[in-house]
This record gives sequence, C-alpha cells and structure tokens, in this order.
Amino acid sequence: MSIEAKFKKLGTDNAPGQEGRQQSAGIESLMRGSALAGRPVDFSHGDVDAHEPTPGSFELFSAGVSLGGAQAYTEYRGDIGIRELVAARLADFTGAPVDAANGMIITPGTQGALFLAVAATVTRGDKVAIVQPDYFANRKLVEFFEGEMLPVQMDYVNADETRAGLDLTQLEDAFKAGAKVFLFSNPNNPAGVVYSADEIRQIATLAAQYDATVIADQLYSRLRYSDVTYTHLRAQAISAENVVTIMGPSKTESLSGYRLGVAFGSKAVIARMEKLQAIVSLRAAGYSQAVLRSWFAEADGWMDDRIRQHQAIRDDLLSVLRATEGVFARTPQAGSYLFPRLPALAIPHADFVKILRLQAGVIVTPGTEFSPHTGDSVRLNFSQDHQAAVAAVERLVALVERYRA
Amino acid sequence: MSIEAKFKKLGTDNAPGQEGRQQSAGIESLMRGSALAGRPVDFSHGDVDAHEPTPGSFELFSAGVSLGGAQAYTEYRGDIGIRELVAARLADFTGAPVDAANGMIITPGTQGALFLAVAATVTRGDKVAIVQPDYFANRKLVEFFEGEMLPVQMDYVNADETRAGLDLTQLEDAFKAGAKVFLFSNPNNPAGVVYSADEIRQIATLAAQYDATVIADQLYSRLRYSDVTYTHLRAQAISAENVVTIMGPSKTESLSGYRLGVAFGSKAVIARMEKLQAIVSLRAAGYSQAVLRSWFAEADGWMDDRIRQHQAIRDDLLSVLRATEGVFARTPQAGSYLFPRLPALAIPHADFVKILRLQAGVIVTPGTEFSPHTGDSVRLNFSQDHQAAVAAVERLVALVERYRA
Repeated sequence: MSIEAKFKKLGTDNAPGQEGRQQSAGIESLMRGSALAGRPVDFSHGDVDAHEPTPGSFELFSAGVSLGGAQAYTEYRGDIGIRELVAARLADFTGAPVDAANGMIITPGTQGALFLAVAATVTRGDKVAIVQPDYFANRKLVEFFEGEMLPVQMDYVNADETRAGLDLTQLEDAFKAGAKVFLFSNPNNPAGVVYSADEIRQIATLAAQYDATVIADQLYSRLRYSDVTYTHLRAQAISAENVVTIMGPSKTESLSGYRLGVAFGSKAVIARMEKLQAIVSLRAAGYSQAVLRSWFAEADGWMDDRIRQHQAIRDDLLSVLRATEGVFARTPQAGSYLFPRLPALAIPHADFVKILRLQAGVIVTPGTEFSPHTGDSVRLNFSQDHQAAVAAVERLVALVERYRA
Repeated sequence: MSIEAKFKKLGTDNAPGQEGRQQSAGIESLMRGSALAGRPVDFSHGDVDAHEPTPGSFELFSAGVSLGGAQAYTEYRGDIGIRELVAARLADFTGAPVDAANGMIITPGTQGALFLAVAATVTRGDKVAIVQPDYFANRKLVEFFEGEMLPVQMDYVNADETRAGLDLTQLEDAFKAGAKVFLFSNPNNPAGVVYSADEIRQIATLAAQYDATVIADQLYSRLRYSDVTYTHLRAQAISAENVVTIMGPSKTESLSGYRLGVAFGSKAVIARMEKLQAIVSLRAAGYSQAVLRSWFAEADGWMDDRIRQHQAIRDDLLSVLRATEGVFARTPQAGSYLFPRLPALAIPHADFVKILRLQAGVIVTPGTEFSPHTGDSVRLNFSQDHQAAVAAVERLVALVERYRA
C-alpha cells in the first residue's frame, strides 16, 4: 500500500476534538431557521471542568517533579514502584494476578496502550475480529498495520438488556476464517452496554479454542451503574498469555491531561509493546506516572459520588431523548456514552451533525465513526455539566424536529 | 515479515535506561580485580538533578492544570495558542517561516516526533538514507516500517574539525538508488559534531535535485559551544515541503519528564503526522504542552550559563580521555554527547560496557547502537554533575588500562 493510500484511510475529519479543523463550506444552504441559543456543549469528550480530576492528582504530580531524574527517566514500561502499586490494585479489581515486573506497561493514555497492543499483535495480512459498533480507532489501527478486519456485529438494539448482543456465531466464524486477534471494548464504546457473564465466558472459550489473543479495552469498567454485573475476561477460563487488558484514568477519573494508561496481561505481548514504546515516545511522561499512585485508592465515597452524578445525567438525557418520536436510546449500563439512533431526517445525518454544531452549539460524534451500519446514530459523552447537557440535548431534539423527514 | 521477526529487530537490550533489565549471567568470569568505588554515574542520559529543568517550568504546568479542560483536550497537533507562540520563536531561531496553523505539531517528546515523521514518509520497501553513526532509533524506525536502509558514512574521525565528515558522494548514490527520505541528526548524536554550512547546503541541493524529504533532528541545536557555526537546513535552498525539522526541550532544557517535542515544516507531512498521532496517543499530554510557553524565552543568561557549564565538563572529560593511550575523542561542537573510541581490549567491547557498570558504577551506551562500524566506541551523555562525571571517566580509563589487550 502506498503511503498516500495508507494515510487516506486514516481520516480524522470527524474525529472527536478535531471539529475546529473541519471545512463546512456549502452547509449553510441546507440550514433551516435560526440558531438556538444556549451554552455550547462538546459531547465529543468529557468535561473535566464539570467533573474534576481525582482530588490530590496535581499534588502527586508535583511530588513526582520533586523526585527529579528518578521520576523523569523511568524504564520504558514505567516506574517499577508505581507498577507494583497499581498491579496489586488491578489484580484485586479484575480478579486475576498482574505481574508488575513483566506483565504490565504504563503508556501515554489508553490510546497509547491500544496502539502498542495492536502493533504488537497485528501485521500485514493478519485477520482481526472487530466489533461493530466499537471505538473508531480499533478499525483505524488494524488498517494502519495493514491487517484485515473481520467485522462482528453487536446488536445492542434488539438484544435482551442483560446482554451486549454480540453475534457469537460471527465471532467464531471470524476465528475459523483465521482471525488471530479479537479487539473489543467492554463497556462498549459507543453504546455503553456491558457484556454479560455468559458472553464473556463464550469469548474466552472461543479464544482459547482458536488460540487467539484478545485485547480487551476496559477503559470505562469502573464507572458502572446500579444493578450491572461486570465480568473481567482475564479472570475467565483463558490463558493469561492470550489476553491483554487495557485501562486508564483519563475518563472516569478525568485525568486525561496527564496522558496515562496501562496494559496488563500477556508477558510476550507486553514485552513487544515496550520495545515499540522505546521508539514511539520512550515512555509515558515520567512526572505524570506519579499521578497513578492514587488510582484505585481514591477517597472513600469519591467514586460512588461520581457514579451517582453520571447516572443522574444519563437518566435525564434519556428522558429527553425518549420523549422524541423515532429516537431509540438503550440505557447505558456503564461509562459515559449515549448512542441514540435518530429518526429519518430530510438531510443526511452527517450534515445534521455539522448543523447541530453550527446552529445549536452542540458537538456530537457521528455514528459512522463506529460502524458503517450506525450512520443514523450519534455518540454523546455525557460526562458534562448536568444542566448544560440537558439543555443541549433539548436543542438536539428541537433540531431533530426541525429537520425531520 | 512475521510479527516475531519484526520485533526481534527492535532490540532494546542495550538501549539507554534499560540496563536494569539486562541479563549479565556469565560476565563475572571475565572480570579482573575488584570494584572501583565512586558515585555511580549513568551516562546513558542527562542528569536533570545536576542540570535542573528551566526555571518556571513547573509553574507553567501548574497554570496549565488550572486552565482545566481547555488545556487537557487540545487539538491532536497541540494547543493553537502555544503553537503560535512557539512557531514565531522557531522561525526566529531557524531563519525560515513556521506556519503555526498547518506546519507544526507538538508531540510526546522528540522521539514522538521522529516516530510520526518516519511513519508519515516511509512505508514497506521505501529506501531511506541513514547516517552511520547516528541516533539508534533512526535505524529501528526504518526497519519497523519495513523500509530499506541505505547507510551513508560520516567520517567524523578523519574529517577536518570544521566538518561533520558526511560522505556526500554516498548520499547522492543513495538518492540515485531511489532513497526518498534522508534522516539525520545535527548536531550528530552520538558524535557531537555539527555539519558545516557547506555540508548542509550540499544536502539541501541534493534533496532538491532528487525530490527527497529530509527529516532533520535538531534536538541539540541550542547547546552550541564557542566558535561553532550552525546552519539550519530549512533556511537553505530547499522547498519548505521537503523538510521536517524536529526539536524539543528534553535535553538542553532538562524537561524530559514532561515529554515534549515539536516537528515543523512540510504541511503535507505534518498533516499525516497528526492523523497518526490521533491513533498513537492522541496528543502530547495537554497540561505538559503549557510548559512550552517558556521555551526559547528563558531568563537572560540562563542558556549561556548552561552552555558554559557543559563546555567546562566536556573539556575536563576530554583531558582525562586524551591522557589515555589509544583513546580517540573528537571535541563535541554542540550537545552533550562524547563518543570516544577505546583502544583494543582483551575482552569484547560489549562485555567491557557491562563490566564498567558492574565494577565501576558507570553506565555508557555501546557504540554498536549507532553504527555497525563503531563497536569500539561508547557514548557518554556528559550532562552530569561535573565532579561525579570526571571521577566516573577516571574510573572508565582505569578499567581501560585494566582490560587493555
């Protein structure tokens, strides 16, 4: 593949946070009516001013700076003291051992972990099973390394609310067709659904049977709402060498500005990831690594409060959306993404997303980023100021009415 | 290439900072005499405790954290306000315009910039001209993307002291053979030599003639010693679209713990780099970006002092090395690397490097990391505590005597 072709596939025009670089020429001719007033809300990512970073994070960073060179220049896989702290907590959280010395790496964000994990397992021509819909970078990563994507549908719309709705037959078919890697997010980004214990066990069984590596992106697995049961793949019947789990404090903990993530599990894959990290960016920023000291050790009640606040926002947004004819929105069981499906409109949904930004000050991520089959949906990260988010979704549904087919 | 083969080439066993992961089994049998006492010195990277980060850096970071979400979530290429500040200063410094909007990207360290620049210009089978010796990651990056390396020798040993000693005929041969990219560091890492104005002009002319992209790693271009003339390639007769220049504050300014770098020049290449950054690690840590506000705007005299201190260390280390029979050390004209060639020893130089760490507490980077032809040399980053560095090099030459062939 020529380098032009390779980068053409890597489109970021609709990527969250890049809206400012979009060309919107010609969109005015499609517009109806005047702008809707209201505080702009950027649902493409969480608002860390509304939900602030974990208390004490900056002080830990500051202490890291005071440590000087020892904190600035860590092993590429991260400071061993911090790895030991975090590994023990991740083992507790996931219910399976984490080897701080050889089975874990600290990365620049969970994006950094995903990049390294895919690079360490996928090369030209390799088949990779990818869920549709799922985090948009998954597909781009596979394409960048010239792997072949085998899509596996997740029918979150029609599934029983206790299941994510993964098509396990299609997953097995992908393995039968030669997929050696399965990459998925749980809770799912963008749909906010959690895989049932049964789905996770079946994934584990199939991966073991076909000797596939599973990369499990569990970025949002701490932010779980009432009554959800969460099952960690790595604690199921699968060889520890066949799973890499990815997490990080950028979302629920609002620590994105420090760029921190971790990957843990397969020692062989982690070793490759570190080799690559050495030429990608050396290490997660040394001083930032110190911020991980408080991860999974936040003050009592802090996480409960954070979950309660997000659940309240979620419920209010769902009420507004569900009062609108033709909108489908499944209740997110975890994380801070809503992925409503909009009704048929008189203009293409892609244009609606642009108009929503220009006429209502509301930024959402178009559904096409997550699956070719979800072009009528939009993703909202509802980790926002509560009142501003409700008002913004009210503007969104007002524009749905205005542009309804 | 299989993924196993791809990662086998990406060896980091001798990479700076990874010595702690080395296996040294069997080395004891080669050892002579007892250990030499003295404060350990890790010459594999600079000592940011001896030469502290630019004053005010932490306060700028802190102000970035106070800005909240606006600083945490920047465009993937970095905050536009900071890009505008820095672009103007880089234009002044290099003598050619820098387009803040479309011709510059902030990256996680200069390593991040190098990775993205190579990924944006080199794909499978592409020929890339690489200097020998040069920064070890250059070769690894080309190999990772399955490019073909065409080595170009730099005879810094025999060259007139006013030249780096690049073999320009070999460079032209590489272009004739189809090299579309030339990647080099100036000042050279590891040899510390600066390319003459004539050499840079000839590189520019050849690149223009063969329409090649030049990636110029100028990481150390601010730390220049008395009487050196430095020529910026981007200000020479070459299309702005054919050059990407890479710099960062990790070394001279001791800001490595924040992981910051920049690449500027070719808009087409920068656009690709940003697309890739979106799936590699999203952005340089948002809060860290704020630290760039003081870059090239340090207090009067601060840089002069830093240069004076490093020149004094350099001169003292050269005296110790040159008093040792059979050691060749060219005077570094810029940066903080010394690359002395050691005499013939009774043990392989690779083992000597390990023994030096175990018997003398002195960590150096073996010359084989930089070129297959410099296995008898070692690299020392002399940005260290002055007295400790002198004592460590005295131990180094004592062991040279002990193990001399």
